[in-house]
Amino acid sequence: MTHALPGSADALTKPETRSAAGIARSIREADRAVSSLREFHAWFAAYVERESSEIRRIPFNKLKGWRFEEPHGNLVHESGKFFSVQGLRFRNASGAVPEWDQPIINQPEVGVLGILVKEFDGIPHCLMQAKMEPGNHNKVQISPTVQATRSNYTRVHGGRPVPYLDFFRNASRHQVLADVLQSEQGSWFYRKRNRNIIVATSDDVELLDGFYWLSVGQLHALLSVDDLVNMDSRSVMACFPLTSPSPSGPWAFDGAPAAPWPVEDASIGSALARSLDPGYGALHSPGSVRNWFTGARGGFTGEAHLVDLGSVRNWQRSEDRISHDRGVFFDVMAVDVRTGSREVASWTQPMIEARGQGVAAFLVQRIGGVLHVLVRVGSEPGFMDAVELAPTVQCTPENYAVLPSEAAPPFLDEVLHAPADAVHFDTVLSEEGGRFFHTRSRYLIVELRAERELVEPDDFRWLTVHQLSDLVQHSNYLNIQARTLLACLHSLLGPAGGECT
Amino acid sequence: MTHALPGSADALTKPETRSAAGIARSIREADRAVSSLREFHAWFAAYVERESSEIRRIPFNKLKGWRFEEPHGNLVHESGKFFSVQGLRFRNASGAVPEWDQPIINQPEVGVLGILVKEFDGIPHCLMQAKMEPGNHNKVQISPTVQATRSNYTRVHGGRPVPYLDFFRNASRHQVLADVLQSEQGSWFYRKRNRNIIVATSDDVELLDGFYWLSVGQLHALLSVDDLVNMDSRSVMACFPLTSPSPSGPWAFDGAPAAPWPVEDASIGSALARSLDPGYGALHSPGSVRNWFTGARGGFTGEAHLVDLGSVRNWQRSEDRISHDRGVFFDVMAVDVRTGSREVASWTQPMIEARGQGVAAFLVQRIGGVLHVLVRVGSEPGFMDAVELAPTVQCTPENYAVLPSEAAPPFLDEVLHAPADAVHFDTVLSEEGGRFFHTRSRYLIVELRAERELVEPDDFRWLTVHQLSDLVQHSNYLNIQARTLLACLHSLLGPAGGECT
Repeated sequence: MTHALPGSADALTKPETRSAAGIARSIREADRAVSSLREFHAWFAAYVERESSEIRRIPFNKLKGWRFEEPHGNLVHESGKFFSVQGLRFRNASGAVPEWDQPIINQPEVGVLGILVKEFDGIPHCLMQAKMEPGNHNKVQISPTVQATRSNYTRVHGGRPVPYLDFFRNASRHQVLADVLQSEQGSWFYRKRNRNIIVATSDDVELLDGFYWLSVGQLHALLSVDDLVNMDSRSVMACFPLTSPSPSGPWAFDGAPAAPWPVEDASIGSALARSLDPGYGALHSPGSVRNWFTGARGGFTGEAHLVDLGSVRNWQRSEDRISHDRGVFFDVMAVDVRTGSREVASWTQPMIEARGQGVAAFLVQRIGGVLHVLVRVGSEPGFMDAVELAPTVQCTPENYAVLPSEAAPPFLDEVLHAPADAVHFDTVLSEEGGRFFHTRSRYLIVELRAERELVEPDDFRWLTVHQLSDLVQHSNYLNIQARTLLACLHSLLGPAGGECT
Repeated sequence: MTHALPGSADALTKPETRSAAGIARSIREADRAVSSLREFHAWFAAYVERESSEIRRIPFNKLKGWRFEEPHGNLVHESGKFFSVQGLRFRNASGAVPEWDQPIINQPEVGVLGILVKEFDGIPHCLMQAKMEPGNHNKVQISPTVQATRSNYTRVHGGRPVPYLDFFRNASRHQVLADVLQSEQGSWFYRKRNRNIIVATSDDVELLDGFYWLSVGQLHALLSVDDLVNMDSRSVMACFPLTSPSPSGPWAFDGAPAAPWPVEDASIGSALARSLDPGYGALHSPGSVRNWFTGARGGFTGEAHLVDLGSVRNWQRSEDRISHDRGVFFDVMAVDVRTGSREVASWTQPMIEARGQGVAAFLVQRIGGVLHVLVRVGSEPGFMDAVELAPTVQCTPENYAVLPSEAAPPFLDEVLHAPADAVHFDTVLSEEGGRFFHTRSRYLIVELRAERELVEPDDFRWLTVHQLSDLVQHSNYLNIQARTLLACLHSLLGPAGGECT
């Protein structure tokens, strides 16, 4: 690669807030989108109508190409690709549960989750896809432009090429708004990460069957529909660059673009907009946040290592599932898939099916008028780097029946028993339908309004949204549930100040 | 932890550039330091004079508490603590050398490298330590306030407590300027990271024997003395927060502090100062840098795993060393240490002794008047996360005699044969004396002045210093050699515009 001569200042890219301003227009001016949400829903319903896939639970011995390899008992694919189900042994002497075994998905490949963005009439739009995934209880959800494992895009399965992939594999020809390796569920995946990438192009883009242009504001509105915007979309959406000084804020400077957000009224949207502008301040300085996080990561004493699935203690394998002795946590099971809408017409695969519905919630609070989010630093056994930031509450309440009381999550009561007007977001969303079968969580954003002192147990901190947004641009800071909630939080910026319907 | 009531904006910390301004004073006003460099050198010489340690090479069978455990042949300590020497097998089908074995140090504990900062008469000073380490060919070098493995500070060896440790373990009572887990040599360590932390206090600090207050400018001046500022000091110094908008620069805003740097003249210091201010721009946008780095990390296909030291191919163990068949790379050897100046009076330990002197260099260039640094993204077998940013050139020239020509480092000629006036930094510095025996590298900063197009091979990019400084605040971006060179680069900000003597 060669560039202009070094003497030329024209060669330099100046710090820019245009992207944030564009995304802001795409959020606030939802009525300027190329289609209305009504049109989208009609298109989506027609797609779902046409989509004729059949997904059936099958016993393990009906899996094709998959087997429990002896003597280890790991569930593997004959190609050695895709993923395998192995065992994990986790030890953490200082944890509420000092040691356990569990099955875990080992998928070392890094996949691509990409959203392609293009402006129409000055409003950036996201190219989203209606996609069937076998684990979705409603089969079809909205996914990113590209959602492909390396096995997909190198076409190990001999399927069709992945549309639009070239925009992401050759992203340097376009404008890259975000590009970061993000973790997925550390309870179910061993060190899994996907590349989350947002690319803005000014090229012509052919609109293929099954794809639809939505503004960011429309995507935000759709987040509050149960089981519609899939996990991968939410993960990428969390990486949209929204942080920027607001010209009406205290940190305004010359050359800032048109005001992205109103910050003057008493709405949650204004408190959130102030939280996106570093100039309004934060309860904790950047150094203090780093000190807290690095202390937790550096001081972590847990260890996880892969073991043979056949040697995992307290789990039993039957004909059609691997389950915990006490009937909690999750099962490993298998499905048969027949479809006309994917790269390959039929296949079988193992999946994970959670027992019980998860709860993931951000407690938020206005501190000096600036919205703060209570995040927890915590470990999950499959994390590649010890700890990440998690929601205030992240649990499956049913599991606590078999766990010591110290393991019960703080703040669960505040979240589940908040007054209705304190609940800004409350939607049931699906976890990734390519690996998880009918596995859903209730995502909540709940505001604390009591005039009381701000409590911060050691592993919790009240952070601003710009602090979270800065961290999410780097790997292994925000876990997947926190990223979903960050995307949901962004949706409170919507045109009606939080009423996103 | 509890805080003020949420309604109060007083509770919030505003973005501040005071720290950067303080560090700037500490760099530019070296004559306001509490002692002169002449006084420091006299003190240091007297310390060295008094320091009476004896370090001898010994055969492995004279190690006390260490043994080659059977049947694996790993070199371990009887406590199971400290570290072990094991084997590593590295495979990377797309690398110039697709597979090799080597010995490697496995030290999973996270140690603390901390510099304590305190203002005297408005000038921040760093509390530095004269410390004997057995691998230093000159025995005593300047180390951070605290340089302690977890075994040290939990006193596994039954030694004396680590002075000043409490400032870092309870850093939240002070101001934290940096706190980040940083990697060390991926060629010699398996996934090693240390916590690099800078804490500013306004408490009274007792000055213990062996410690000395130096301004940052004085530390910078000392960097250009061969083998004086040790590796751990350099690593922490790289994390000093220096990036900030310069009020005379294009991105100035109200409330910015007094100008930290002059940016108007034609000196290398001014080009560097402009490079610290995001407002002057950069050749590559943040999105483009992330795209390049994430592409390299996500696309990395190498794998490393620990193997038994006894099974490492192409390495031979004799009575007193483990060496490569062709006499290159490094040896594992052992030393006996007797000293009066450390927590423990005598001990034995294995070390790594490199063959040949390393070369690590940054090529720099002014692009539009803004200093840019050519960094490379590359893998080292012990990295925990695939790739990190490395110097333009990082190699031991002698090793290339036995490697394929594709492995030879680009830009080595430009670095070694630059005209004298293009060489801004050229000093031989020691690698960590606690693990590496007489292992030294020549660190260079060389300016490209030719009026030619800027070449960027795929794995190289020209980045500004503020881009590097932002990344160094997060783990696993800049490798240890790049951090040393970043600290050396900072030293060109010095009062005499690069003449730091």
